[in-house]
This record gives sequence, structure tokens and C-alpha cells, in this order.
Amino acid sequence: MPVVVVYMWKGVSDNAKKRIIGGITRVFVEIGIPAEAVEVVIEEVPKENWGIGGEQASEKLKHAEVP
Amino acid sequence: MPVVVVYMWKGVSDNAKKRIIGGITRVFVEIGIPAEAVEVVIEEVPKENWGIGGEQASEKLKHAEVP
Amino acid sequence: MPVVVVYMWKGVSDNAKKRIIGGITRVFVEIGIPAEAVEVVIEEVPKENWGIGGEQASEKLKHAEVP
Amino acid sequence: MPVVVVYMWKGVSDNAKKRIIGGITRVFVEIGIPAEAVEVVIEEVPKENWGIGGEQASEKLKHAEVP
Amino acid sequence: MPVVVVYMWKGVSDNAKKRIIGGITRVFVEIGIPAEAVEVVIEEVPKENWGIGGEQASEKLKHAEVP
Amino acid sequence: MPVVVVYMWKGVSDNAKKRIIGGITRVFVEIGIPAEAVEVVIEEVPKENWGIGGEQASEKLKHAEVP
Repeated sequence: MPVVVVYMWKGVSDNAKKRIIGGITRVFVEIGIPAEAVEVVIEEVPKENWGIGGEQASEKLKHAEVP
Repeated sequence: MPVVVVYMWKGVSDNAKKRIIGGITRVFVEIGIPAEAVEVVIEEVPKENWGIGGEQASEKLKHAEVP
Repeated sequence: MPVVVVYMWKGVSDNAKKRIIGGITRVFVEIGIPAEAVEVVIEEVPKENWGIGGEQASEKLKHAEVP
Repeated sequence: MPVVVVYMWKGVSDNAKKRIIGGITRVFVEIGIPAEAVEVVIEEVPKENWGIGGEQASEKLKHAEVP
Repeated sequence: MPVVVVYMWKGVSDNAKKRIIGGITRVFVEIGIPAEAVEVVIEEVPKENWGIGGEQASEKLKHAEVP
Repeated sequence: MPVVVVYMWKGVSDNAKKRIIGGITRVFVEIGIPAEAVEVVIEEVPKENWGIGGEQASEKLKHAEVP
């Protein structure tokens, strides 16, 4: 406890994954939860499978970059 | 708001993805939510990883097609 | 198949729930999936528990209404 | 994008919710994502409904406190 | 690892929760995972919020009982 | 009802998938739910995308095996 599921576009760099996992864990450590108790799961979702405003992100946000 | 996560078998066509994203967004627009606020995430799951009635869909529903 | 999980703010009317469940199911029926195979789960989340732009929706979007 | 779902034990204080939402959003801002694009959903789960090591957290971790 | 999220209708008895948590954990222990690594989260969803075949379970399956 | 989502590290053998799906379904059958009503979804997550104690499982638990 806690378990954190992160839905993001596919293509996240290894460095960004490290920062997401480390950063989210620290948020919980700062409110008193032991780091070992924090599990973070990053679900990478292809932009074709992500809809926003009724359109695929692969079309609507074609030029948006993944961190 | 809202966020909609759709779990389906893997292999959904691009046309079906468009219709799922567009159609689900419209459902919320019709009850008064702005389209821009609707996020849809399609999680494609291999049939081997989907159980129904205690068996893998890849065996139990071998001939069922993905839209 | 499919399973659809909808995250929304708490306080959705019964009428809106019916329209969400009926409308999402129809989207899948229209791409060839039998209605009986569609499961929709509405997770109502208190606005205090929903963050957008780093703030609770209960503060940032205090006057936004739930359908 | 991203959408972050946090599963925690029920009873989180309003202050902790603010810090979780603010802190997680900052993690993504620091890797280049606009704050407005980050949605965080906190799912509070009663300790009776949370299992760890095969037992309910309400029994196994009776004295553990929620932040 | 693993994290198991169970979506069920609201009203699950404490005894059923114990059996679900214990039983699911054992499934993973039997394939070689330590019990301590297994987290199970039971999300109880009101029947009004659960759609099947396009209708609320509270109407369509009015007489179905929760274990 | 129920729907069970299992998050695990990627690389689960077909035999383990069968045992997870069959075993979890049996847990619900034993509390009175028909097997046909149980859906199990296994989400395989690369160890690089799984954080525990603030680190990627691919580093922290490099030698841990997937069942």
C-alpha cells in the first residue's frame, strides 16, 4: 500500500520511467509511508489507443512528444 | 473527467478504435460533458491473458473474432 | 469482453448511469459485439479525490456539476 | 495524459490528498508534461478489502495508520 | 508483485472477502510467488453502477445475491 | 461479475496463465458464483515499468524470476 497505476503514451524513455517511479515513491515517503510499501505500475498505451476529445491522440496530438 | 478504460482482446482494427473512442465520447457529450474532458484508454489484452469461465479465451473462444 | 471501467466524479444521477451503460454498450454492439458480452463498471470518485492540474477538483472546479 | 490511479487504504486526510495530487503532478511537470494534462484519481479502499500476504490488512496491519 | 484488483458488486460479506483474499493469494503461492508479495484489492461497486447487456445489474439481475 | 485484473511482470508462461485463470475462477465458484460469470484479465508489465521501493524491478529485483 499504496499501489499506483500510471497510464501514459507508449515510448517513455528509461530515464523518465526512473524519475516517475522515484518521484511518485518520494511523494508517499514524505507523508509517512515506507518506500518499500509503494508499488508503481506504468502502463504504456499506444497513441492510437488513447482518445481525447473523441479522437485518437495519434491524430489529434500527432506532434506531441512522449517524455 | 471522465476517464474510461476499455479492456478488450488484442487485435482491434484502427477503424474500430476510432469508433470506440468517438462513440464513448459522444455518450458523455450527450449528458452534458465537454468532449475535451473525456479520455478513453483502450487496453488490448492477448486472448491468452483473458480468462472466461476458468479458461483462456484463446482456447475457449478460439474462433471469436476481434472487431 | 469488453470490460469498461468509467472513472467519474461522485454524484452521478440514476438517469445518467442508465445512459452511460446503455450508450457504451451500443457502441460495442455497433462494431459487432453481442450486448450480453459488455460489462460496464462506473467508479464514482469524490471530487476531493480527483486531481487535475495539481489541485483537487473540489477546489479547482468547485462549481462544475456532475451529470 | 497521464492518468494516475492511486489505490490506498480508506481514511486519507484532506491534507494528504492535496500532497499526493500536488506531488504526483509535479513529478510529471518535471519531465516536461503540462500540469493541466495530469489527472490523478485516489481510490480509497477499506482495509477489510485489502489483502496482503493472504490476510485482510484490517487484521494483519491493524495498527498501521493511514496518512 | 502481483497486484490483483477485483471488481464485484457491493455487499460482499466479511467471510467472502477473507476467502477471496486467501484463495487468490494461494493461487500465486502455488506457482512459486511468496504470499507476502501478493496484494489483493476488492473494489465493491453498487449494482446501480454495474452494467451488463446495456442495463444496470440492479434492474437486470435484481434477485442475484452477493456472496 | 466479478472482473479480476491481475498486474504481473511480463513473461508469464502459458502454464502459469492457465493456473492463474483457473485458480482465481475456482475461488469465486467456491463462494457461489457461476464460473461463466468470472472474467480474469492478466496485464503483463515489463519489469522496467514496475517500481518497488522507488526503483525499477528490472534493477532492484534483477534476478527474480517470472513464474
